Amino acid sequence: MKTRVCIIGGGPSGLLLAQLLHLQGIDSVVLERQSREHVLGRIRAGVLEHGFAALMRLARCGTRMDQEGQIHHGFLIAHEGRLDRIDLHKYSAGSSVLVYGQTELTRDLYAARERMNGSVIHDVQAVQPQGLTSASPAVTYRIGQELARVDCDFVIGADGFHGVSRQAIPPGVLKEYEKLYPFGWLGLLSRTPPVSPELVYAKHPRGFALCSLRSPQLSRYYIQVPSSERVEDWSDEAFWAELERRLPRSVADKLVTGAAIEKSIAPLRSFVAEPMRYGRLFLVGDAAHIVPPTGARGLNSAASDVHYLYHALLAHYQNGDDTGLDGYSAKALARVWKAQRFSWWMTNMLHSFPDALAYDQRLQDTELAYLFSSEAALRSLAENYVGLPF
Amino acid sequence: MKTRVCIIGGGPSGLLLAQLLHLQGIDSVVLERQSREHVLGRIRAGVLEHGFAALMRLARCGTRMDQEGQIHHGFLIAHEGRLDRIDLHKYSAGSSVLVYGQTELTRDLYAARERMNGSVIHDVQAVQPQGLTSASPAVTYRIGQELARVDCDFVIGADGFHGVSRQAIPPGVLKEYEKLYPFGWLGLLSRTPPVSPELVYAKHPRGFALCSLRSPQLSRYYIQVPSSERVEDWSDEAFWAELERRLPRSVADKLVTGAAIEKSIAPLRSFVAEPMRYGRLFLVGDAAHIVPPTGARGLNSAASDVHYLYHALLAHYQNGDDTGLDGYSAKALARVWKAQRFSWWMTNMLHSFPDALAYDQRLQDTELAYLFSSEAALRSLAENYVGLPF
Repeated sequence: MKTRVCIIGGGPSGLLLAQLLHLQGIDSVVLERQSREHVLGRIRAGVLEHGFAALMRLARCGTRMDQEGQIHHGFLIAHEGRLDRIDLHKYSAGSSVLVYGQTELTRDLYAARERMNGSVIHDVQAVQPQGLTSASPAVTYRIGQELARVDCDFVIGADGFHGVSRQAIPPGVLKEYEKLYPFGWLGLLSRTPPVSPELVYAKHPRGFALCSLRSPQLSRYYIQVPSSERVEDWSDEAFWAELERRLPRSVADKLVTGAAIEKSIAPLRSFVAEPMRYGRLFLVGDAAHIVPPTGARGLNSAASDVHYLYHALLAHYQNGDDTGLDGYSAKALARVWKAQRFSWWMTNMLHSFPDALAYDQRLQDTELAYLFSSEAALRSLAENYVGLPF
Repeated sequence: MKTRVCIIGGGPSGLLLAQLLHLQGIDSVVLERQSREHVLGRIRAGVLEHGFAALMRLARCGTRMDQEGQIHHGFLIAHEGRLDRIDLHKYSAGSSVLVYGQTELTRDLYAARERMNGSVIHDVQAVQPQGLTSASPAVTYRIGQELARVDCDFVIGADGFHGVSRQAIPPGVLKEYEKLYPFGWLGLLSRTPPVSPELVYAKHPRGFALCSLRSPQLSRYYIQVPSSERVEDWSDEAFWAELERRLPRSVADKLVTGAAIEKSIAPLRSFVAEPMRYGRLFLVGDAAHIVPPTGARGLNSAASDVHYLYHALLAHYQNGDDTGLDGYSAKALARVWKAQRFSWWMTNMLHSFPDALAYDQRLQDTELAYLFSSEAALRSLAENYVGLPF
């Protein structure tokens, strides 16, 4: 098989790039290890920044997102018994975020690829990029018993943190930066009305909690748990009880509990691999960088990668101009690191760190006290939360 | 001897408070362990925020400060070979800082106390606050061979981190918060023209450096050194050579070196004791809290303590209103912690931390990259540097 761009990974970044390129007449093949059902079953991010939403519209996949997604003009922070609101609209000069589940987004992208007869090949195994430093790279894979090969101009690694793309780069080429946190998020999805129309981030001596949502009938809650915890040891009842303890009375009183549709523990990790290019392989999103979920930068960090890479490929094919491709890694990383900084800052401000100095615990409280006393600090938070400019 | 307010410590905070009270007809005695020459020989802070300068004027001690002090509308940060300016004037809505050595400030305050026949007793030994929880406290001390005693309404502990005031509070009453840094600042004072009219904070892989000044003929330079270093092991030549290595070429080329008038190593420490009151003893400045010198919050943190305490004592004596005294600790600490936060942030951003993760080193670089890309971040830095409102 021959195509221009071979995209490894059928998550939102890969599909979005394929769709954007398609609309400009640049054909691609998307290879996905899992079945479509499996991809759509994954519960992931739910808060989209404007830049991401704009790319969805540009890809002509924004109709349902704009109909069903909920515009959020702010969110709440619970701390020391208080509930303070961050007015994103006010402090970001009129911007906002869009709450629309990643599952729905992926569904819309699959539907769009189908309408346009885009090639998305599922259930591929033993995916292996080849000849990345040559002028004509390829990706080989197995599907059932058959071996197959895609010859292409460029390979895009959009296959996540554990994917094969980053691993296909020879040892010593990448520098990897990593920071682990001694806790994870235990998340529970339930078909219950959300406790609050806006997200509630709760700092509590027992640990962080987050009240999030996917729709007016679908709630997503999280509690900080030590890295050693296992999801099997958490009954729904235990989860709800612990969540309630960490919320201010005014919020907890409104909590509607229900059976878990999904329950899982995600470790918290900060990770960046540099550079984001190796020969004709370009890494996108989680394949190159991971943030802890606090502040909702994960999927949104991938948005600027897709944006820069889309424009770089366009310039290459339409004008034979490779400056975009050559500058991709540096440009993408500059924004990626700022999202890393913000995610670390919000994580650090809101979680309990079991071994923290008493001094550092007071600094945490002070960070919040300063935040709510300073317009400059609120503006800084808001501009990061709605997404720094591409 | 009988007085209304007995102030332990003849540094700038104690003298300023004595002077302010005197002008309102409230008499005080200042007790100082050292000789006046010794106090005036100490080389300390040089950057005053507006709030501090305003207190000096209110105390009628601002004339020479306003004549000889230099108004600074900004400062420079050197990093990765670049030299970026923080425009304090622009980002703090027209504010600035005043460069005027603490030595000069103290000299002016002594002169004022003398003019007004204020009682400042030097060379006192074995100073001991007594009966702090009674209605009539006292301070006993020895001067030469004589024992002496000051009976008073209130005792003010303005005697610094190592002073007797905080130690006079029974164990278990105070909660102390502390954070040590694995390095200190080696400082050198020389009678040479400063390398830059504005301060230069330099982040460098070999360690932090600061080009500061006291006057157009008096330079003060610092370099970060490990806590284990001894000042005896640093010749002037070694100091200048190391400083030069850490400055960008454009700055280093202008460096005028000369013999050290003073050279010393100061450890970096963050410390807060809570509460700042015990009975009729009130702690002020370094007696209750210490910051690392990055960001020049030390003396300026004491300014708000003096301001709150002055107004509280005034309300007590003029209107019999004790709400100010009762609220002093909480009010002072709220601003103290914000200065602690800012000092920690600037220290963390600009120093080399020998055991830091590679990830955290990149976060440091990103903090600066974000700072210079964001008006909100610049405003936040500026409002802290010129001093948060009292």
